[in-house]
Amino acid sequence: MDKKTLFGNIQQKSSFLCVGLDTDLAKIPSHLLKEQDPIFAFNREIIDKTADFAVAYKPNIAFYEALGPKGWESLQKTLDYIPKDIFTIADAKRGDIGNTSKLYAKAFFEQMDFDSITVAPYMGQDSVSPFLEFEDKWVILLALTSNGGSSDFQVLETEGGKPLFQQVLEKSQRWGSDDNLMYVVGATNGAKIAEVRKYAPDHFFLVPGVGAQGGSLEEVAKYGMNSNCGLLVNSSRGIIYASDGADFGDAARAEASKLQQEMARLLEKYG
Amino acid sequence: MDKKTLFGNIQQKSSFLCVGLDTDLAKIPSHLLKEQDPIFAFNREIIDKTADFAVAYKPNIAFYEALGPKGWESLQKTLDYIPKDIFTIADAKRGDIGNTSKLYAKAFFEQMDFDSITVAPYMGQDSVSPFLEFEDKWVILLALTSNGGSSDFQVLETEGGKPLFQQVLEKSQRWGSDDNLMYVVGATNGAKIAEVRKYAPDHFFLVPGVGAQGGSLEEVAKYGMNSNCGLLVNSSRGIIYASDGADFGDAARAEASKLQQEMARLLEKYG
Repeated sequence: MDKKTLFGNIQQKSSFLCVGLDTDLAKIPSHLLKEQDPIFAFNREIIDKTADFAVAYKPNIAFYEALGPKGWESLQKTLDYIPKDIFTIADAKRGDIGNTSKLYAKAFFEQMDFDSITVAPYMGQDSVSPFLEFEDKWVILLALTSNGGSSDFQVLETEGGKPLFQQVLEKSQRWGSDDNLMYVVGATNGAKIAEVRKYAPDHFFLVPGVGAQGGSLEEVAKYGMNSNCGLLVNSSRGIIYASDGADFGDAARAEASKLQQEMARLLEKYG
Repeated sequence: MDKKTLFGNIQQKSSFLCVGLDTDLAKIPSHLLKEQDPIFAFNREIIDKTADFAVAYKPNIAFYEALGPKGWESLQKTLDYIPKDIFTIADAKRGDIGNTSKLYAKAFFEQMDFDSITVAPYMGQDSVSPFLEFEDKWVILLALTSNGGSSDFQVLETEGGKPLFQQVLEKSQRWGSDDNLMYVVGATNGAKIAEVRKYAPDHFFLVPGVGAQGGSLEEVAKYGMNSNCGLLVNSSRGIIYASDGADFGDAARAEASKLQQEMARLLEKYG
């Protein structure tokens, strides 16, 4: 998917909501466990009920990988089921030497047909570039994450007084453009989002911080939005586990709708 | 596998050789393609012919993931086939927020039964610690890699005049011990290995630089060996693709044997 199409979808749905498919056998409603593929049955219902409000779906690959070959089949079925006009993110945090990253790219962009993949920057340019060579596919590079451990290395001051995440933002902009490169930016507070936005004014940010991980949507929009919206805000557990009963689909729909309405307001106000 | 057993195997075989199973359908001998599972057929022959000389096997997970669910089955069969006294490394470069890293750990340590996994440090402590909670399992953390992109971030000077990889080495030693934490250290030259060894005197290093990626085994041993050997030196393509004919197994054995003899000499000299 190209940037223009993505932004068109955001405008059409008045939403920049990404629904995270962190689908866990231990958390899905128990009546689904008798299904032949409970993970896919759950995801199908979530997709049916939230597709009106979501511009992106983000399966967290670990949840599928933990189930072995069957998990990969559930993932493939889920990906095939997502409507083609909705952006898909393989949240995989991959990254390795060039020939190996190329294989990961093939796995997620050819074997499967994801629009994008999250990539870790530690190994540098040749670990990221192979993902950028696929047309209309995107790298979403870790810049500043929302977890506690983000303070261990990402904010260390480096040469020129720049925190490491700024080095990642600046250097990586030479490897790709805002047409094939986004960043993971954890929503902790407005000042931080504003700082990151300064270093990457035109790129989309994938913001994982709303919902179970905390963070304020208003702050994110106020300080992070740009002229193409420039934001995909993810919510996983807050939507998909809104109910653990037979009504989980409707409960997810209600939560997604609530977030979309708030996003429509914010697009009006800051977009 | 615990450290004492690993060192015992190194002494018994006079070898610190790790054989990398970067098994690629496009590179294996063509007569294997008629097999029901060509990847496993190839790996089985490589393992049969090199197990006398190897103390570790390291499947590069990307090569299996690129084949979809079938690839994961080939990987599982390969892992099950490796003799139990040989250390196994899932070269996966994983790492995510805590609950997600925990699932990756379950995938590789429980769903499969690898002894260790390579992990990327960018997301910090809570992305690494979940892997350290499994008994007799190991994290092999990226410190200084051997690819060109290692110069983008890993050697940036940070607070206290320390390069980033030194921060990784120092901080991570508070999360685990030399009984469950190793480091990936690219073999570029002796002085660099000596520098890294200074910051982590007791830990095992996984050194990916011998063979197709260059690097001198003598330098690595001279500057990197410690009282428990402290080295696993990997060779992938130089061994497994030594021949692309029907004799690939014997050719791999000859290459592995050559490296093992050199390692025996180096263990004598520096061990």
